[in-house]
Amino acid sequence: MSRMVNAGTWTDYLHQHRDRAVEEFLDLLKIPSISTDPAYAAEVHRAADWVSNRMRRAGIENVAIHPTGEHACVTGDWLHAPGKPTILVYGHFDVQPADPLELWTSPPFEPVISDGCVFARGASDMKGNVLLTILSAEALLATKGALSVNLKFIFEGQEESMSRDLGPFVAAQRDLLACDHVISADGAQWNMTQGAVWMGVKGACAMQVDLETSNMDLHSGLYGGAVPNALHAMAELIATLHTPEGGIAIKGFFDPVLPLEDEERGRMAAIPFTEAAYLNETGAHGLLGESGYSALERSGTRPTVEVNGMWGGYQGAGLKTVIPAKASAKISCRLVPNQEPAAVLDVLEAHIMSHVPIGAQVKVTRFPIAARPYRVPMEDPCARLVGEVLAEHFGKEPYFVRVGGSLPITDMFLRELGAYTHTFGFSQPDERMHSPNEFYRLSNFDLGQRMFCQLYERLAELAKA
Amino acid sequence: MSRMVNAGTWTDYLHQHRDRAVEEFLDLLKIPSISTDPAYAAEVHRAADWVSNRMRRAGIENVAIHPTGEHACVTGDWLHAPGKPTILVYGHFDVQPADPLELWTSPPFEPVISDGCVFARGASDMKGNVLLTILSAEALLATKGALSVNLKFIFEGQEESMSRDLGPFVAAQRDLLACDHVISADGAQWNMTQGAVWMGVKGACAMQVDLETSNMDLHSGLYGGAVPNALHAMAELIATLHTPEGGIAIKGFFDPVLPLEDEERGRMAAIPFTEAAYLNETGAHGLLGESGYSALERSGTRPTVEVNGMWGGYQGAGLKTVIPAKASAKISCRLVPNQEPAAVLDVLEAHIMSHVPIGAQVKVTRFPIAARPYRVPMEDPCARLVGEVLAEHFGKEPYFVRVGGSLPITDMFLRELGAYTHTFGFSQPDERMHSPNEFYRLSNFDLGQRMFCQLYERLAELAKA
Repeated sequence: MSRMVNAGTWTDYLHQHRDRAVEEFLDLLKIPSISTDPAYAAEVHRAADWVSNRMRRAGIENVAIHPTGEHACVTGDWLHAPGKPTILVYGHFDVQPADPLELWTSPPFEPVISDGCVFARGASDMKGNVLLTILSAEALLATKGALSVNLKFIFEGQEESMSRDLGPFVAAQRDLLACDHVISADGAQWNMTQGAVWMGVKGACAMQVDLETSNMDLHSGLYGGAVPNALHAMAELIATLHTPEGGIAIKGFFDPVLPLEDEERGRMAAIPFTEAAYLNETGAHGLLGESGYSALERSGTRPTVEVNGMWGGYQGAGLKTVIPAKASAKISCRLVPNQEPAAVLDVLEAHIMSHVPIGAQVKVTRFPIAARPYRVPMEDPCARLVGEVLAEHFGKEPYFVRVGGSLPITDMFLRELGAYTHTFGFSQPDERMHSPNEFYRLSNFDLGQRMFCQLYERLAELAKA
Repeated sequence: MSRMVNAGTWTDYLHQHRDRAVEEFLDLLKIPSISTDPAYAAEVHRAADWVSNRMRRAGIENVAIHPTGEHACVTGDWLHAPGKPTILVYGHFDVQPADPLELWTSPPFEPVISDGCVFARGASDMKGNVLLTILSAEALLATKGALSVNLKFIFEGQEESMSRDLGPFVAAQRDLLACDHVISADGAQWNMTQGAVWMGVKGACAMQVDLETSNMDLHSGLYGGAVPNALHAMAELIATLHTPEGGIAIKGFFDPVLPLEDEERGRMAAIPFTEAAYLNETGAHGLLGESGYSALERSGTRPTVEVNGMWGGYQGAGLKTVIPAKASAKISCRLVPNQEPAAVLDVLEAHIMSHVPIGAQVKVTRFPIAARPYRVPMEDPCARLVGEVLAEHFGKEPYFVRVGGSLPITDMFLRELGAYTHTFGFSQPDERMHSPNEFYRLSNFDLGQRMFCQLYERLAELAKA
């Protein structure tokens, strides 16, 4: 409120500060804030410091870093729009691990600008989107002296670890975070010419399977053919999870799954889809999965079981003629209404334990992460307003669709704060999130700042609860 | 010939020099002469230097280090027993890789003596056995001034890489290495109270399978259920190699295999065997394999297919919710008469290529290693003499059996030098060869030196060719 008001509009302001904004984006990307690996805990905290300092400079008030169980989160607010709704803006400043490093063209934490894109781990998921929520608030405050709604911010450092400490924090800080709607910047549009309003996300749960066939690796000549091999056993076990066509072969897995409604199928069928374009986007050598559903239906609305890592025996150069005694696999599931994470892990564990190969012993360890599946009601007014803002830019109605990613925060905010979360992010699906050579388009970095300014202004139209 | 003759017998000599011999053994074990990993090439050469120096000090003549394609080998001789047979003594000073390092109680190349055993990589396979062939010759030369047979030595640094350069070297050095019989110190007795004469070894061949389902790892939420997963595909592919009971399910694999003869089955059936003891020896959680054959028959006389390593996706701490695009497996086979390595790889590759999972692309790379299976005729006079020397020590007939390990040199020496190889080594099957915490019993280090002295003397009884 006490800030000097710049001459000009917020569009002028964004234009004038464009180079500085890009420099700041690169700075943030240089911090390897990998939340899944404890070795990087200090870097995650460094990202929290960076974000909180940037918020303060933008004019956001009451900025604070809060320790949680593992990684800190950052809050702040601007609450000087009496009678107007309160919006909680969410993002995360942590990133996925960068390996396999050898597949990166440039080092993952040394951002490179090429062809109008920034290449770095976290560029698309989601340091660019975090920054534009702050830069847009700054532009409005700097040029208008005030916002038209009450804004609260919460940025966490644990999203790639399934936000497991955020729920208890939000539960303990219900007053600090009380709001009418949540806007999450963690998301993408459909493509460069088509907007999307994300009406649901999948839930998630995961486990590690450790299998052992002996107390020690054995000489493949002296004992081969007589004793079990942990890799043969692991392959046999993992092969039971799916059919050769990619369906899930786990008894009871689909029991709680709500059938896909005709209305939603119709909406999805209207989305242009060609297999060739999809293969090009993913680089996949084919499509496969549950029969009876289209690829979009499967990825958006059907539950999945994916082995994320599997290993055992000798991986070095050359050959080691050994019978491996141990093998491991990391398995994660994506869930849809009404699957419950714990119940799905029960079903998966029961499948594994009833398919333990001859001569193998199996131990299952559940990862301390779980997200419920989540859906927004079709009639939600904030979802409609988000759709209108997108339609104005793209010149056509956005798709209203569910996405297969997991945002554990959506279900958590609904339970703890009674508010639905609406995704408003400017990544694109082809930007290699979670993969080597992740990138983000600078044109969307500019667009996103303008779009957030517009959204922050339009949100004032919503009724205050 | 010019050496001073010590007072006393060779047994006195061995006794007097026992501490020095153990110190030397530990010195040799400190050299990480891993031949399968190019990063250790200099260490393999250092082991060659060490061995050649020790041979010279023992009184062995014409000691020379010969470069071969990858690793050097060492030769030497003592040829002053006219009219007596010439024996070529074989061993190798290279070792297997030491990983997984975390399973070692003490570092693999810092030998530790505990409970009368030396713990180190290469202790049992086979630096102890190499050394006792030299120490015994030294004891005879030092106390008698001469040997009763002509000895030639060849020690290589590439056995754990399937001795691939040794064949061309021997072919080029037929005069240098010409002999009547080969004695290989690379072997074990049956157990501490039972000798064994090894009448055959398995052949070997190997390949790496690299599988790809996409150009890049993909986000398991955005694309899960729609695209193939390289780990699912690899598991499915590897699971086709064997039946759940451990039999080999590869079409044509057994076609050239000679049936197991009744005489050999009878000899094997006479060997005391209890499953409990075998499980205790191997640490295996069960036995499995080809039906219709005992565990000893399978490991000794039946061909095998073992996956030695398999990997893909995220293996670090925590979880990475990715759909892996690539997976790899190293597969090796052990062969019996009359399987040919190249033909077996053809059959294996045909199986793999006809079982490529939906959405996967597979590349097969053959390892440049191959060993033919090998058998010694039952009536061979040197095998009988070796059996007599063992019977004298153990107080009972040794078992005459085949072993499942591969010694590519046996078939090679037969082809290049026309001589059968007889294994005479003092390792034990429980000494964790190729596994963490490999060890060798010092009591057998002492015994082996005495046994080699006796063998060197008795070999004079054989006719010169």
